[in-house]
Order: sequence, then structure tokens, then C-alpha cells
Amino acid sequence: MASLGDIVRRQSVRQFEIQRVVVGAGAAASADTDIVATEEPLEIRLAYSRPDGAGRAEQSISITMRTPGNDEELAVGFLFTEGIIATQNDVASVGPCGPPAENGLVNVVRVELADSVAVDLDRLERHFYTSSSCGVCGKASIEAVAVQGRFDLHADATQVSRAVLAALPGKLMAAQSVFAETGGLHASGLFDTRGEFLAVREDVGRHNALDKLVGSRLKSNALPLTGLGIVLSGRASFELLQKAMVAGCPLIAAVGAPSSLAVELAAEFGMTLVGFLKSDRFNAYARADRII
Amino acid sequence: MASLGDIVRRQSVRQFEIQRVVVGAGAAASADTDIVATEEPLEIRLAYSRPDGAGRAEQSISITMRTPGNDEELAVGFLFTEGIIATQNDVASVGPCGPPAENGLVNVVRVELADSVAVDLDRLERHFYTSSSCGVCGKASIEAVAVQGRFDLHADATQVSRAVLAALPGKLMAAQSVFAETGGLHASGLFDTRGEFLAVREDVGRHNALDKLVGSRLKSNALPLTGLGIVLSGRASFELLQKAMVAGCPLIAAVGAPSSLAVELAAEFGMTLVGFLKSDRFNAYARADRII
Repeated sequence: MASLGDIVRRQSVRQFEIQRVVVGAGAAASADTDIVATEEPLEIRLAYSRPDGAGRAEQSISITMRTPGNDEELAVGFLFTEGIIATQNDVASVGPCGPPAENGLVNVVRVELADSVAVDLDRLERHFYTSSSCGVCGKASIEAVAVQGRFDLHADATQVSRAVLAALPGKLMAAQSVFAETGGLHASGLFDTRGEFLAVREDVGRHNALDKLVGSRLKSNALPLTGLGIVLSGRASFELLQKAMVAGCPLIAAVGAPSSLAVELAAEFGMTLVGFLKSDRFNAYARADRII
Repeated sequence: MASLGDIVRRQSVRQFEIQRVVVGAGAAASADTDIVATEEPLEIRLAYSRPDGAGRAEQSISITMRTPGNDEELAVGFLFTEGIIATQNDVASVGPCGPPAENGLVNVVRVELADSVAVDLDRLERHFYTSSSCGVCGKASIEAVAVQGRFDLHADATQVSRAVLAALPGKLMAAQSVFAETGGLHASGLFDTRGEFLAVREDVGRHNALDKLVGSRLKSNALPLTGLGIVLSGRASFELLQKAMVAGCPLIAAVGAPSSLAVELAAEFGMTLVGFLKSDRFNAYARADRII
């Protein structure tokens, strides 16, 4: 009988018949099989009490293309980083919903909120819609995040050594079980100041990998992420910094490049942002004083 | 006076004060500047005739985080790959809208549709919402694309040599002007069977880079992309294959890994899908018969 680990692993990868081609000297083409990271839609359904006291409501609030596994963490992490819920106590229940599809996957997660939660679904409409005087721009986007943010990170006294940072990419790669097989997954890893991983999550979507990571901490009532850092296997975009900021994480280290708005958001909220993190070097784009 | 090229280039990158850190032997930290890819929101506004004959309507239909540059191509490419418009004739006008934000960028593009266009904004709601018998799953997602797709690619007779494919990553890197400075941009390149690039577009979002590329061809009335291929600087996801399929492109070659749903979509619609494309090797995941 397959272990739970086997089943999870099997759902997160699929096998295909491919042709491997070598070009130039020793040119050849051979039939082979290859293991590919699974991408399937996940629908997140929300059941909640209507604000007007008119009973319960249920609606689909998101469809994301994700890699199966840790779906419940993804759902609650998404609700948290989008500002719909604030603590694990806001969640009455969470679980798969409906029968499996033909391929055996259940691609719907239903989250039932506690009666006490005041649901503001407008938050899901991106805030830069609001008619600010400067129009749609990065500054307005950052201000919208400020409204949503709960944790002040300017005073966070976390410090981490250069050597701990430089060791993270190798450790993250070693922890990425599915990436090793497929080369096709993003990862987010939560680490402490000694460089030990508390959790690593993978997904074809980098925002999903981070939502899974945040969701895992929410389920353990372990938010905010004070005194901890998040390492990203790829680039650092506005969206990822936004999610990390809402989760109260003072330090983001990305193996890839940051975007301009990621740097600006980090500076605005007192977050340390490291980019191009390699085993022997990196760049610090904001709050380098936390690196010792 | 700055040339137009200078201005475009300057909007697509920003300069920040950073600290460069070297770890291990020769450890050092030095203040420096770094060029970072710009990420700013772009709002796409649509002006169109109401289906009920009750005059014109205008509404915001999308906000995407993008790298400034080729914004009009991005807007019309998005409308095309989402099934809102079919040809350049559907567009009465397209242009920036409103005053520049503080940073000098205009982050709103307004697309005015021809009177004759029947707008079906429900298309923008992702089709896998529809209650198919198998629930939300990859199969339903692919079927939804089939409804939207206009071009049958099974019979497309395009053929490309192994050597042409293997040379693409190097050529794409050489063509990525902003990536060279920032290391932070995805690219999509349109190539012919001799391996010559017809167009290359860059963006922090890989879906945006592809929408810009498709939009550039729409504006030249050069769709579908019969007999041509698209090379992607990163991974191949469902969303990218979907957009390429709607644009009628028979061949996708990705430098990175494909996802399961990307492979399944390619197989379903007769598209050739190449992954892990390097200068000396690659994998063919679907319709390898087009590679000679």
C-alpha cells in the first residue's frame, strides 16, 4: 500500500513519454519518460455569515493554477495574505469539497469562517482600483498594502549573518524534493537566524508556494513571522513582498532578481531585501543593517 | 535631449543604492548602485457598445503588474488572448489614458472597441468556473480553451531543425536588452523556421511578455502565427500554452521546465512543446515530428 508521502508525491508529479534530443557532436534522439510537475486548478470556496445578519453565504472566491499538495494551507494562506482572515480562530473548518475529478484529484477547497468574522470581499478587488489622486501607480499600490498590513517591521531587531544567508540556496535546493525530479517548481522556505528551515513549500506558482508557507504557520498559530526570514527560489516581485509583509516577516532573500516595486515596498515597510543570493555573494537592496 | 529609445529604456529600469556582499574568502561589503527591472501596475480600460443597444460603456477590466514599455501591445494582446477581440479591426483606438503619475509613467491604457464588436466580458471570468461534470480540473480547463481557440494546429506543417532550436536560447539572451542589465525579466521571442527573430518582448510577468508579443502581431494584422514558433525564457505553464494556442502558434520552446497541464494542452491541440532548451540538448514533450 502506498504511504501518504507516496500519494502526495505522486499527485505533485506526472510522467510523460518524451523524446530526448542531443544536438551537435554526438547528436541523437531517443524516446524516454520524464517526470513533470503537476499543474491543476484549485478553486477556493468561502462559506461565511452575511454582514447584514441574513444567514450564511457561500461563494467561489479564487481559482489558481497550483501543484496539488498542502491545498488547505494554500487556501488559508491566501485568505490571510489577502486580508480576509487574521488568525486561525477565524477558520471554523477547512477541507476538500466534492468528489474527486477523473484523475483522482479533489480540486476544490472549502473554507468555513467562524460566525464572528466580518467578511470584506472587496479586499479581493485589488486596491489600486481606488481613484487616488496620482492615478494607478506603484506608490498607490504600496499605500494600499499599508492599509492591509498589520505588523510594523521597522523596529524588528532580527539579525542574520552573511554566512547563514549564503548557505540558504544550497539548503533550499536540497529540501525541494519535487524540484529535484522535475526542475519545474518554485519554493519558499522559512528559516531562523541560525539558518535552520522551519518549513519549505513548493508550487508551480511562486505566489502559491508562499501562500502555502504562510498558511502552514497560520494553522499552527505561529504568525507573525517575527525574527524569521523567507528564502525564495526565484525572483522577488511586489506580490511576494506584499504577502511576506502581511505575514510580518522582516527578511526576504531571493535567489533571483528583485523588481523595482519589491525594493520600494521593502524600503517603505522596513523589510530587509536580499537578491541574487548565491553561495558566495548577494546584493542587499533594503535594510542591510540586519545583516551582520 | 533623450531619444525615445532612452526614455523607453529608462522607464523599464530603475537604479537603487545597494550593498554588494561577498562571503567566505575575500569577504567584503561595499556600497554600490544596481539597475533593477521596473514593475508598475497597468490598468486596462475598455470602451465598447453595450450589447442591448443602450449606448457606450467603459470599464476597467484588468490590472496587471508589468514592466513599462509596449503597453498598447500588452493591452490588445491581452484582449486577444482572452477572447475579447479577434482582429485589429475590432480596435477603434488604443492609447494611454489620463495624466502621468508622479514618477512620469502613464499606467492606464484605454482600448476603444469598434461598434461592431459584441463584447462578452464573461469570457474574462475564467471558464473553469462552469460546472462541468468532472468538477474543477485540468481537463475542464483544457475544454474551456477549446471553446475559445480559433486555429486548428493539428495539421500545421511547420518543421524546424534541431540546430535552429538549440541556437534560440543564446539568440534570445542577446536580444534581451533589459535583462542584460537587470537579470530580472522574462522574454518571449517569435522566430521563423530559419531561427530568425521577428520580435522579442520582455516583462517582469511572463504572461505579459507573451501578450506584448501577440499584441505586436495583432497590430500588424499578422495573426495567426502559422509557420512560426515562440521561445520562452522561463518555464512553460498552462496559461502560456493557452495564449500561444489562441494566437495559432504551432511550436513552443521553453528554456525552463513545462508543467503537466502545459504538456496536456499541447498534446490536445497538436502543438509542439519543447522544454529544457539548451545550446546542446532539449526535450520534446509533444508533437516531436515537427523537429527534423
